[in-house]
Amino acid sequence: MTHRPPLAITCFAGAEAGEWRVDSNTPVVGAGLARVAHVAVGGADGVWTLNGTASHLRYTTAPERLALRARQEGLGRPGSTRAALIPIRKSEDWWAMAQDERRAIYDAGRHLPIGLDYLPGIARKLYHSRDLGEDFDFLTWFEFAPDQEAAFDQMLERLRACAEWAFVDREIDIRLTRS
Amino acid sequence: MTHRPPLAITCFAGAEAGEWRVDSNTPVVGAGLARVAHVAVGGADGVWTLNGTASHLRYTTAPERLALRARQEGLGRPGSTRAALIPIRKSEDWWAMAQDERRAIYDAGRHLPIGLDYLPGIARKLYHSRDLGEDFDFLTWFEFAPDQEAAFDQMLERLRACAEWAFVDREIDIRLTRS
Repeated sequence: MTHRPPLAITCFAGAEAGEWRVDSNTPVVGAGLARVAHVAVGGADGVWTLNGTASHLRYTTAPERLALRARQEGLGRPGSTRAALIPIRKSEDWWAMAQDERRAIYDAGRHLPIGLDYLPGIARKLYHSRDLGEDFDFLTWFEFAPDQEAAFDQMLERLRACAEWAFVDREIDIRLTRS
Repeated sequence: MTHRPPLAITCFAGAEAGEWRVDSNTPVVGAGLARVAHVAVGGADGVWTLNGTASHLRYTTAPERLALRARQEGLGRPGSTRAALIPIRKSEDWWAMAQDERRAIYDAGRHLPIGLDYLPGIARKLYHSRDLGEDFDFLTWFEFAPDQEAAFDQMLERLRACAEWAFVDREIDIRLTRS
């Protein structure tokens, strides 16, 4: 049996310097985050810091994972000079539901098939923040080439129209360019 | 929509003083934890500290939750002078599975019905540690009256015989008396 090392917590620091330059910082639902010039992934200090853990799959089934793996590409592609950091918090009502109730809403919203439509153009990674006692529940991170930005906007529009998004009580859309 | 406060992280500190006196400290699978005289729940310093978040339900369905709620009682009952702190880590193989694969093994092991058999005698609370970058994935906490200890041992024996326990790669059984 493999000895499993502890998971790493990733910090996104909004600061005066960092790998990613902030193009826009837009509150979508609830309070925004202070304006900053850059976001440093793996930073430590900043005007604000958001922490999350790239953890295990919470809803995805084995067949869904196969479909994702067949199409998705990783972060760090040279052409992916644009990124989006979208921290999200869901309401108490969402978290009070049992697993099957949350999964039913997730399914009804076609969350996963919508994401599949934009692979491999939009690469994504999900960080979990809720158990860390953070204000956000998730930090969603996306990377794509500049010509994918319109597709990315369309994907967000479709996701935000899902029933699941009625439970989002804070969301901020931070767009970035690799500096 | 209710503004949701961040979750609280609970610290279990193995130390020279604390509300709970250690009666035994037994490694079940993998490395043990250093011997300590007491465990302070909500402590901060100690020979060792284990952190976890009482978070949302990960597998439990709505009908299962109803069955649990109908029978379970809370922590802190005056007669519950005994407790057990059982930190558990599951292997890489467990976490590499998709949600439906993990749930199928959880179901096959009858994990939830076994727990139901010991309600309301054995009160329990689950803390999640994995996303915090802790060495353990879960801190399981149980409280019961002294005359329930044999039933508690039987419950553990039945749980440890489940297929799910083949994925446990570290487990320590710490028994406590309220001091």
